[in-house]
Amino acid sequence: MSAPRPAAPAAPPAFASVFGLLGPHLQELDQYLHSQLTAFEPEVRNMVDYCIDTTGKRIRPTLVFLSGWRGPGVVQPELVRAAAVVELVHLATLVHDDIMDGAEVRRSRRTAAREYGATAAVLLGDALFAHALNLTTQFPTTEVCSAVSESMRRVCAGEIMQTLRRGSTNVTRADYQRIIDLKTAELFRVSCFLGTKLAGFAPGYVDAVSRFGRHLGIAYQIYDDLADFFGEEKRVGKTLGTDLASGKLTLPLFLLMERLPASGREEVLAEIRGQRPVQSALHIQQMRDLDIFNAVAEAVMAEVGAAATALQAWPGEAPTPLLLGLGEVLRGQVAALRPAV
Amino acid sequence: MSAPRPAAPAAPPAFASVFGLLGPHLQELDQYLHSQLTAFEPEVRNMVDYCIDTTGKRIRPTLVFLSGWRGPGVVQPELVRAAAVVELVHLATLVHDDIMDGAEVRRSRRTAAREYGATAAVLLGDALFAHALNLTTQFPTTEVCSAVSESMRRVCAGEIMQTLRRGSTNVTRADYQRIIDLKTAELFRVSCFLGTKLAGFAPGYVDAVSRFGRHLGIAYQIYDDLADFFGEEKRVGKTLGTDLASGKLTLPLFLLMERLPASGREEVLAEIRGQRPVQSALHIQQMRDLDIFNAVAEAVMAEVGAAATALQAWPGEAPTPLLLGLGEVLRGQVAALRPAV
Repeated sequence: MSAPRPAAPAAPPAFASVFGLLGPHLQELDQYLHSQLTAFEPEVRNMVDYCIDTTGKRIRPTLVFLSGWRGPGVVQPELVRAAAVVELVHLATLVHDDIMDGAEVRRSRRTAAREYGATAAVLLGDALFAHALNLTTQFPTTEVCSAVSESMRRVCAGEIMQTLRRGSTNVTRADYQRIIDLKTAELFRVSCFLGTKLAGFAPGYVDAVSRFGRHLGIAYQIYDDLADFFGEEKRVGKTLGTDLASGKLTLPLFLLMERLPASGREEVLAEIRGQRPVQSALHIQQMRDLDIFNAVAEAVMAEVGAAATALQAWPGEAPTPLLLGLGEVLRGQVAALRPAV
Repeated sequence: MSAPRPAAPAAPPAFASVFGLLGPHLQELDQYLHSQLTAFEPEVRNMVDYCIDTTGKRIRPTLVFLSGWRGPGVVQPELVRAAAVVELVHLATLVHDDIMDGAEVRRSRRTAAREYGATAAVLLGDALFAHALNLTTQFPTTEVCSAVSESMRRVCAGEIMQTLRRGSTNVTRADYQRIIDLKTAELFRVSCFLGTKLAGFAPGYVDAVSRFGRHLGIAYQIYDDLADFFGEEKRVGKTLGTDLASGKLTLPLFLLMERLPASGREEVLAEIRGQRPVQSALHIQQMRDLDIFNAVAEAVMAEVGAAATALQAWPGEAPTPLLLGLGEVLRGQVAALRPAV
């Protein structure tokens, strides 16, 4: 998803209609996040500041704000706080991810791991987690803390599974589904849950929006995995084929292997296992030849469709059209990746 | 502090009187911790089990149980849950510490980092943190979650400071005090707070016991730093002088440098900075010659004394004699380290 700022001229209309609304919300979020620095011990504030001050896409806060949408006007402080919580949890996972991936750069800045060392980055991520959960205790009941801490545990479980399967070819498509459901869809789901719940919507709608969030999260992760092979390197901001290079089996690779002859399949598997050098360019070409783009894009669209279906019974609630618009934005982003024939 | 089991014959009397009481509590704690496995995703349960199943000293749970002591009899479920929370937070920090230290063995077993890889261990620690905080939401109010998440943030901040100062000689004794106050005393303090608070003691006593816990934590960390130079390698379970070898300035080293001539001081500083090979045996001998043991032991005793003073106004409350007994156990352990002349 693109950066949640007032739309640039070239953006598709859905983008403007959905994100143009959130300018004040995202501004308040940024102010709120920065105001949290003083909650940290003075000795670590500059490090926390470094992590917060990203040009991130703020997707999860966007989900909180849209899911709790009651119309333009005042920005509800509860939603700002919940948005800060999910963003801090997300930023903490990024800090830890970058250590593990040995990543040096994220969004054109050095990663925290590169800037402060892996050891300090582990602890910095922990401190961000801790503060995110501390913020949840400012809500009147334990419900927010309970939902967020459970999500966090599930996100970690998903990432553990992914980590343990790196370089292994003993991974099924069901494993892949389970992993992205936990590592990505879970935080999307809880963002939607918190938004609608805190805005006081009916329990049935809270459930529906949570299901929407889960499917959108799955769709988003599949899109992200597709972009790893079909993105423009400059826009994606990283080398294509990094998943393959790091021994990670994602949907484009599963589908490629289904369509390759046995010998080609064996080559991919051997690369995943690190038994032979990775030939990203070859496999990207094979994916083009075997129409893998469309097969993966269909999987994204199916999940966007399932997300929309979750909201079908609730056309009249204020968040519904905005959330559906978000699904359309994602469809548009997938379409924009389509290789020229 | 020694393992909280019914006293072995050679143990000092305070040991038996304090820990003999907690057999049922610690048994219930172990059962409770193991019952938590099912809360984790099936795919990661064996890893969580591996972390929980330690022969750890359970010091923080002991503090919870003693601070909430109302007499022998029923074990309060709230205290068991709180004890599990602080122990899980502690275990999570150990999992992360062992990654950062590159430790291969802890308590005669391979560390989680060694067993599952550093990447999975980062995530596993995160999942343990998340579940610890999730358990706090089973209390009726957000108070426990708030206290624990704030402590966790402070512990991390202390560990970050320690990490960033490794190999640096630009560290003062005030920095050292601040670091141990955060990284160790904080979790001791919150354990005591939770015990008395959940057992329903008066606010003044809750404050007093919390102060006791903080001072005991400082004392315990100084004792631990002393044991790094004066322990028996077999009992401590690690090579002596590891703090120096890892570039960490602790109280025994500060005091040694105060008493060494300038040239000797420069040698120690150069070793801390990694500019020359570490001469642990030499410095341990210097510490013996310059009576550093007694100077550090006095610092421990002073903190144990401050801990006792915090309880002075509350002699009649049931936890008071037990907590004072715990202080005596620590004094005894320090005395047991005293080198034969």
